[in-house]
Amino acid sequence: MIRVTIWNEFRQEKKSDEVRQVYPDGIHAELARGLAADDLQIRTAVLDDPGQGLTDEILDSTDVLIWWAHIAHHEVTDENVRRVLQKIQTGMGLIVLHSGHYSKIFQGVCGTSCSLKWRESGEKERVWCIAPFHPIARNVPETFCIPHTEMYGERFDIPDDARPIFMSWYQGGEVFRSGVTLQRGYGKIFYFSPGHESFPIYRQPEVLQVIGNAVRWAAPECRGTISAPKVPNLEPIGNAENN
Amino acid sequence: MIRVTIWNEFRQEKKSDEVRQVYPDGIHAELARGLAADDLQIRTAVLDDPGQGLTDEILDSTDVLIWWAHIAHHEVTDENVRRVLQKIQTGMGLIVLHSGHYSKIFQGVCGTSCSLKWRESGEKERVWCIAPFHPIARNVPETFCIPHTEMYGERFDIPDDARPIFMSWYQGGEVFRSGVTLQRGYGKIFYFSPGHESFPIYRQPEVLQVIGNAVRWAAPECRGTISAPKVPNLEPIGNAENN
Amino acid sequence: MIRVTIWNEFRQEKKSDEVRQVYPDGIHAELARGLAADDLQIRTAVLDDPGQGLTDEILDSTDVLIWWAHIAHHEVTDENVRRVLQKIQTGMGLIVLHSGHYSKIFQGVCGTSCSLKWRESGEKERVWCIAPFHPIARNVPETFCIPHTEMYGERFDIPDDARPIFMSWYQGGEVFRSGVTLQRGYGKIFYFSPGHESFPIYRQPEVLQVIGNAVRWAAPECRGTISAPKVPNLEPIGNAENN
Amino acid sequence: MIRVTIWNEFRQEKKSDEVRQVYPDGIHAELARGLAADDLQIRTAVLDDPGQGLTDEILDSTDVLIWWAHIAHHEVTDENVRRVLQKIQTGMGLIVLHSGHYSKIFQGVCGTSCSLKWRESGEKERVWCIAPFHPIARNVPETFCIPHTEMYGERFDIPDDARPIFMSWYQGGEVFRSGVTLQRGYGKIFYFSPGHESFPIYRQPEVLQVIGNAVRWAAPECRGTISAPKVPNLEPIGNAENN
Repeated sequence: MIRVTIWNEFRQEKKSDEVRQVYPDGIHAELARGLAADDLQIRTAVLDDPGQGLTDEILDSTDVLIWWAHIAHHEVTDENVRRVLQKIQTGMGLIVLHSGHYSKIFQGVCGTSCSLKWRESGEKERVWCIAPFHPIARNVPETFCIPHTEMYGERFDIPDDARPIFMSWYQGGEVFRSGVTLQRGYGKIFYFSPGHESFPIYRQPEVLQVIGNAVRWAAPECRGTISAPKVPNLEPIGNAENN
Repeated sequence: MIRVTIWNEFRQEKKSDEVRQVYPDGIHAELARGLAADDLQIRTAVLDDPGQGLTDEILDSTDVLIWWAHIAHHEVTDENVRRVLQKIQTGMGLIVLHSGHYSKIFQGVCGTSCSLKWRESGEKERVWCIAPFHPIARNVPETFCIPHTEMYGERFDIPDDARPIFMSWYQGGEVFRSGVTLQRGYGKIFYFSPGHESFPIYRQPEVLQVIGNAVRWAAPECRGTISAPKVPNLEPIGNAENN
Repeated sequence: MIRVTIWNEFRQEKKSDEVRQVYPDGIHAELARGLAADDLQIRTAVLDDPGQGLTDEILDSTDVLIWWAHIAHHEVTDENVRRVLQKIQTGMGLIVLHSGHYSKIFQGVCGTSCSLKWRESGEKERVWCIAPFHPIARNVPETFCIPHTEMYGERFDIPDDARPIFMSWYQGGEVFRSGVTLQRGYGKIFYFSPGHESFPIYRQPEVLQVIGNAVRWAAPECRGTISAPKVPNLEPIGNAENN
Repeated sequence: MIRVTIWNEFRQEKKSDEVRQVYPDGIHAELARGLAADDLQIRTAVLDDPGQGLTDEILDSTDVLIWWAHIAHHEVTDENVRRVLQKIQTGMGLIVLHSGHYSKIFQGVCGTSCSLKWRESGEKERVWCIAPFHPIARNVPETFCIPHTEMYGERFDIPDDARPIFMSWYQGGEVFRSGVTLQRGYGKIFYFSPGHESFPIYRQPEVLQVIGNAVRWAAPECRGTISAPKVPNLEPIGNAENN
């Protein structure tokens, strides 16, 4: 059983009628419904929860954290970002969605600005899978179309070890590394750009398939046996005679 | 002319007779002497300088920043770390030395804990160059020996795109990726572990050769033409007829 | 059930009394015994078998190929190397052991010379795991010792995407990336240097644990569903209205 | 002075009126004209030359080899491919253009099938630079358009260390990693897909700028000092007392 926490900033759904019409219960609730499965134990948390929904109790019982945020990145405290990053480094998986590219936690994972180009025009996006052998690509078609989307375009400022699994084409002329994996310490990270607060992209089967695959891929392989980095060994055991 | 700023925490040299005997004017001064060359314009800065030696004036006129720190990593303000990281992302080179692996700036670049094993016993280290074609390896012998050193051992918690240029062997039985390159945005980063506050390692010619090479490698290729990431293009120019 | 073929050159065991004393039935037989497990269906093949032990019948029913060779690399035909490489590119796993670094198939995977330093003196090797989170590291101690071994030292001429899982220390002063992963097309590759024809290294539990883990890691995830690359699409479906 | 050899299969220009109209003297001659510069000493060679234009005399005096081929990949002998690969591994640069992705030499460098999708319809291609800091991107605009091209689409079967410098968008809905760097041993390799035998793409300034930059980037940094991998050291010098 993989313990998943879907964390949502949950602000635009409250402020905007347009967003609420698409995701009346919030994006986190929609994702929880869409990802529901026997091997996943899913819970949600939002920025306005106590402890910003990122308490030790929550993080300690989370195998994979899904992150959605857009307009309140700066409100997440540096201390909470540090704690989430530390959990990742000791094994917790992280799935960052869409506008989460500018979250402090994704920037902290990458060490880069994570900047990109964008355009809101509801144009067509075509997603191509370029690593069909990867667990995140399981049962995902070689290519699929998102009829109306926000454009996210290169140059995407991410580090060289961001391994592209998906690449996107946009009607307006741009391209994007729309799905990339990273690893930091014991923790696996997946960024996936499809998804927007005012298009019903999180109800599209291919998109949910990708996110569900990513959750299973990012789950720590040996939960419980992973410990924090050990204290340094002070004895030169390496060269000892009987060792 | 490459503008180099050697930044030193400069605390142990003041506190400890042992350290002062090795580096009477501070590690920064020793490095400045050792790296002096016609194509380098070198200045030094220390933690107790105004603005922690990391003012806009200094950063804006620095092509490559060399970083030495050990016992006061936590004193460097988060705000200064953010500013240094931003300068790197827009092109400033960074050379992190020895115990700087635990600095906030190197952790910020890596997104990992940067933890490692260590042992202070003055044992022998043998450095192997595993990328002899790399500019940082120019005129560096295939292997050289540091007679007395602090051991730094694996597992070194760094990201997958940390490309090893040097690997070290220690008398006591450990191994270490002792020289690695990274890139974040436009900025090049080199971490090099040899060097310690109480061994005269920064007077050893091979070590100075490596650091000098790294400075030249990390200097931005097109200073002045690098701008911050552009604002998003809002027009779908990509697919335009006449474009 | 993972179908494993252990391929052995099987020449030194016939020629040399010294080698036969260590591996009387051949290295392939020893490995088959050591790796025996309920989830593995193991068979062996040798260079002097019909079709060099690399017939279509064998390759088509192999999920993971283990390769041991030393003195007869040049006898394996280019045509057979091409066929093995093609099987790897469509999903077959490959585990290359010790002196197999100079095999045509490993050179073909790498695109490099795969050269290294070596010394036969029966010295001590200490293996360090630098990717403890990796499936190949499961139940492998952080470090273990091989009492008598042949030294393999850097510079190991392998490509940049050879991800180090293990690094070795040698008594005589060298270091080596002793366990590295690669991927070519759908196929996963693992090179592991420990093992020699005249030391009983393939009876050491840690070494067998690593090889067994590697077999399970390299097994294709979706056997049977992997097809050769599709023919190009000639219609511009991507931009089609209803797609 | 960088010594450049432009190697061309030079078959389609002889057979087809359509191709000859675009490149009357052959693609090699067109490229030689377009790349002419004071720091380059350019010569051409073709498949029907003695020794297939790949004699020792030619290779030994070549710093960077540019490769264009399309319909006669299989005619280049395995022995010549081996010799070219060896030259690359000891420092010669290689620039592979367009349909050269299926050449034996590029497949040999990659270890993969190098397969891709394609469509000949003269559609528009938009090239995006995703590594503006890279020497190959110098003076290349962030994005430029090729009005009529053959589509090359993902999945491009290349290894993980193929670092994307350019990514392309096609009118028909596909995307492609259209410019990637690789390293094998001491040698640098650049693959660039723009270019076709029946569109005048090699007269487009941006395309010539990229290829020219790539030549300068791929030139060996220390010609003459690079030697073949050394013989193994047989003495355990590493741990010697005075070393």
